[in-house]
Amino acid sequence: MEQKEFRFLPHIQCPADLRKLSVDQLPAVCDELRRDIIKELSVNPGHLASSLGVVELTVALHYCYDTPFDRIVWDVGHQAYGHKILTGRRDQFYTNRKQGGIRPFPSPEESEYDTFSCGHASNSISAALGMAVAAHLHGEDRKVVAVIGDGAMSGGLAFEGLNNASETPNDMLIILNDNDMSIDNSVGGMRQYLLRITTNPTYNSLRFKIANKLSRIGWLSDKRKKGILRFNNSMKSLLARQQNIFEGMDIRYFGPADGHDVVELVRVLQAIKSMKGPKLLHIHTIKGKGYAPAEEDAIVWHSPGKFDEDTGQRLCSAPDCPVPPRFQDVFGETLVELARQNPQIVGVTPAMPTGCSMNIMMKAMPDRCFDVGIAEGHAVTFSGGMAKDGLLPFCNIYSSFAQRAYDNIIHDVAILRLNLVLCLDRAGLVGEDGPTHHGAFDFAYLRPIPNLTIASPYDETELRRLMYTAQLPDRGPFVIRYPRGNGSVVDWRCPLTSVEVGTGRLLHEGSDIAILSIGPIGTQAAMAIHALEGEGSGVSVAHYDMRFLKPVDEKMLHEVARRFTQVITLEDGVVSGGLGSCVLEFMADHGYDVRVHRLGLPDAFIPHATVEQQQKACHIDAASIRSLVLQLTGPSAG
Amino acid sequence: MEQKEFRFLPHIQCPADLRKLSVDQLPAVCDELRRDIIKELSVNPGHLASSLGVVELTVALHYCYDTPFDRIVWDVGHQAYGHKILTGRRDQFYTNRKQGGIRPFPSPEESEYDTFSCGHASNSISAALGMAVAAHLHGEDRKVVAVIGDGAMSGGLAFEGLNNASETPNDMLIILNDNDMSIDNSVGGMRQYLLRITTNPTYNSLRFKIANKLSRIGWLSDKRKKGILRFNNSMKSLLARQQNIFEGMDIRYFGPADGHDVVELVRVLQAIKSMKGPKLLHIHTIKGKGYAPAEEDAIVWHSPGKFDEDTGQRLCSAPDCPVPPRFQDVFGETLVELARQNPQIVGVTPAMPTGCSMNIMMKAMPDRCFDVGIAEGHAVTFSGGMAKDGLLPFCNIYSSFAQRAYDNIIHDVAILRLNLVLCLDRAGLVGEDGPTHHGAFDFAYLRPIPNLTIASPYDETELRRLMYTAQLPDRGPFVIRYPRGNGSVVDWRCPLTSVEVGTGRLLHEGSDIAILSIGPIGTQAAMAIHALEGEGSGVSVAHYDMRFLKPVDEKMLHEVARRFTQVITLEDGVVSGGLGSCVLEFMADHGYDVRVHRLGLPDAFIPHATVEQQQKACHIDAASIRSLVLQLTGPSAG
Repeated sequence: MEQKEFRFLPHIQCPADLRKLSVDQLPAVCDELRRDIIKELSVNPGHLASSLGVVELTVALHYCYDTPFDRIVWDVGHQAYGHKILTGRRDQFYTNRKQGGIRPFPSPEESEYDTFSCGHASNSISAALGMAVAAHLHGEDRKVVAVIGDGAMSGGLAFEGLNNASETPNDMLIILNDNDMSIDNSVGGMRQYLLRITTNPTYNSLRFKIANKLSRIGWLSDKRKKGILRFNNSMKSLLARQQNIFEGMDIRYFGPADGHDVVELVRVLQAIKSMKGPKLLHIHTIKGKGYAPAEEDAIVWHSPGKFDEDTGQRLCSAPDCPVPPRFQDVFGETLVELARQNPQIVGVTPAMPTGCSMNIMMKAMPDRCFDVGIAEGHAVTFSGGMAKDGLLPFCNIYSSFAQRAYDNIIHDVAILRLNLVLCLDRAGLVGEDGPTHHGAFDFAYLRPIPNLTIASPYDETELRRLMYTAQLPDRGPFVIRYPRGNGSVVDWRCPLTSVEVGTGRLLHEGSDIAILSIGPIGTQAAMAIHALEGEGSGVSVAHYDMRFLKPVDEKMLHEVARRFTQVITLEDGVVSGGLGSCVLEFMADHGYDVRVHRLGLPDAFIPHATVEQQQKACHIDAASIRSLVLQLTGPSAG
Repeated sequence: MEQKEFRFLPHIQCPADLRKLSVDQLPAVCDELRRDIIKELSVNPGHLASSLGVVELTVALHYCYDTPFDRIVWDVGHQAYGHKILTGRRDQFYTNRKQGGIRPFPSPEESEYDTFSCGHASNSISAALGMAVAAHLHGEDRKVVAVIGDGAMSGGLAFEGLNNASETPNDMLIILNDNDMSIDNSVGGMRQYLLRITTNPTYNSLRFKIANKLSRIGWLSDKRKKGILRFNNSMKSLLARQQNIFEGMDIRYFGPADGHDVVELVRVLQAIKSMKGPKLLHIHTIKGKGYAPAEEDAIVWHSPGKFDEDTGQRLCSAPDCPVPPRFQDVFGETLVELARQNPQIVGVTPAMPTGCSMNIMMKAMPDRCFDVGIAEGHAVTFSGGMAKDGLLPFCNIYSSFAQRAYDNIIHDVAILRLNLVLCLDRAGLVGEDGPTHHGAFDFAYLRPIPNLTIASPYDETELRRLMYTAQLPDRGPFVIRYPRGNGSVVDWRCPLTSVEVGTGRLLHEGSDIAILSIGPIGTQAAMAIHALEGEGSGVSVAHYDMRFLKPVDEKMLHEVARRFTQVITLEDGVVSGGLGSCVLEFMADHGYDVRVHRLGLPDAFIPHATVEQQQKACHIDAASIRSLVLQLTGPSAG
């Protein structure tokens, strides 16, 4: 079958093979690459729409540039599936995102064609500039290309990179892949700015007329391309009466070009690749291009799960019985309930309205929701400004992306002890997205910050109660951390009642050893205890849900210290600095002689796998907890 | 004396008093305010040049806006001395930056005229936007003004704020205070962009001609001002053939205006203050304006110390004997020595070349140094890109500003285990600059990150040896943390030899109790031990310099655990998560029964004072350590 369907792809083991083809064969390569991605993704879930959008760009880049000697820096690896397939990983592509398989995002540890870390948006220009400067200082004629989306362009880091690019000797090319989307729709002034560059009618109509004419009369010879592009550029300045920001920053601007015309892309790239100095090529693409369902709803098809390739129907296995909801949906629904009661509540999300379910509130009360674009630092400081003048922002950020807002949390919120709620979604292990996306460090990096309250709910009803508690008057900055995915309570619409700040709960009585857990990972401890009881082990395990990391429940810890000689702490965050360290500090400060065994994430970046596989690898799953309890309480223990 | 010298200032207890004056009296007020600042600063050191540059702007803002109901958000509080003097703090101004006195930067805790936290650059637009949105949602006719320098405009956060400003209903005014400087000279594309907006000769000559003419023929009536400004704006677009970035982002652009013409500033502000939608006013000022020595060298006069008001001579008390050098100078000199030996070494600083002494290398080898502007995140990712392609960057960032680069350290450096050296200057307590500037959290937030090496030198020679060690082949990301100011070794030019990574040193033998310190705060322990020996206390104290927080010297900790039942840990960072926690974790993990007493910074933002006063308040000074040792080893201890 494949022989018939795929004429070129099986023979492209690496980009050098691609470069043996003629330009007019490239459209067929693009077609095959697109079909290959759709076929694979239909059975092995992953990020679909972004990769479809850059099929032509991917082919054109590897065709025109001497990879891996030349560097392509992808901004956010969602889009890099075509790149993987063309760079020797087609045969392994079925292992994509699976434990031991190829990684979710490009990684230099996996392939010499992967140049940098690309899980978090907006870093490509800075990294590529570094590589371009290295080439310059080493006297190497290496080309460096950064590929950045218009969504990622709203991130401050991208701007810092642009700002620096003109200052430093380099021949970098920035490709601005403009599809008016990141994961959700793009927002902000830069988007409007790009739109205007593009839609200026005088410029565009003239540009295309002239280009067509020149092309028809055979003027577009190799020799003339450079001149034409320069002419286009200056003509644009002249006609559009605008000097664009990039040119103003001494970065030469080319475009906009059609990002789905691979022949045109090759022509443009060949023309500009040897030009000196920093350059920006603005291209237009369509997210999900070439697969109708994905083109129609690129948000849903960002990461669609399995689907029927032919019908475009997504294959969600219907549960046999009611399942607990996702924490995200509980957040989204509860936020609207609270906002109806408390007129000061507003919602803030940095470009993740669908992912965190704030889209529910955006629909119900659009004036009170703010999608600020990929800009986590701004999301927090902007929330701080609103809180300073009496609003009560719920700012929702994925835990690993909140690392981008660390200083904002300290300097713009905690110092002023502002009343706002910071909800950290995707906390703890995240599964298939791997090391760049784990919310592993949040407990450890937030705990030292004065004035913060830090909580994590055991389940969905606790999330609701914590959210209710956090918006009560004068609570100061209040962090609520919860993971991706489903919780454990089907009947989650509990009444909105408050929780006493800084108190935990005894979930299960016991006398031999105590487990202190925080967050939904506590359910693994509950399962371990259930198993130990079921098998008649005779071990009596107490289970405390600490609920608050800060202020920690000192009354409860005194009780634990008096009653137990051995304690296990359990968290799905790094074991250095989080709950375990906090309990150790408490015991030391109060002179208790309690043996504390800390369970949590080790001092390593945890590879991609399912969450269950990762929990097992980190020994924070029910089976590992059960074993540890038996080991600590067994006859030879002590 | 004052009665004669200061006619207006003594009668301005608050901005409402200022607003009773006529516009033509304002130049005299500015003159008095400027003289008052110079006079005060000559005897009470502080930030001079920035505050002199915004005297007219400060007067104009408080004159035109109904403060404190209207909000002025200063970006970086260096410049806010005039603001303090006009807002009821003139009488207390002599206590500026002193323990218990008025704070180094505006703070809402101090005055209702101070609207937000402003120690770190680039946050004003985001915070002001938050306030403007709050006013909008509350239906209040409150004006909000952000004042941001061109240096701070290079920060990604400022761009994120701008990007969001057009999306959200608000009537905010952004004043871009363009003096082509932050603390050092400004750099980057945005600076060039602003320069071009300003220097476009067609636009400027025409604009001024027309404005002058209209003014002369009496056309600039109140009614017409708005029209004129709009006209100016569109004329600019027309003549200059550029649509500037701000207008492209739907932020109306006005300017550039002369920031030292208070009458003109008042006229412009009155004209635009009631206009709807986001606006930006671009003004030009001179840092140090009105005081010749400061105008000539604004870098030196950023924070000049005491000086003779009349002669402009800075009063540095000459030491009687040779003093140890500043850590900064040792860093700067050693970096050049190393760079001469190792051609891969490059230097990166986010806008602090003078502060961190990288200016020494910038002078010696300008091609290998990169001042990237106020852009800490970019500084790290850019360094990562260079390291990826074989250079060895020494990236120097002030510890508290490195909070801005937290994700970059994790995602763009540590995951890839890149070979680069991150030098954190101004670590620990910083004295007079207060809570926003302490490098308090670095040990705690860096320790959980896999692949990092984290070290802190005891003194200058150790700093040199750590820097040498860090640049040896394949060391991975290597953090060296040291404080502001002088060390303890006069004869610091030791040979450049390596230190074994992950090893500490026994500094002083003892048998009753052990002190484990990290960094130069260890000298306080040494002084305490010296005092205890001098007074014949009979207590025998061992002192270990841990040197590395990560990897911690486990061999040494095993030895300590076997020899001692009581241990004191000492660090000038937060006590949650740093060295003390690390030692507790080690003891727990290895089942040692050792009492660990952790000394470090408490869970609070430490107010401004001298470093010595702050150390005392945190009980990490020699006297406190001595007392603790006596208490723990005394007859009643146990």
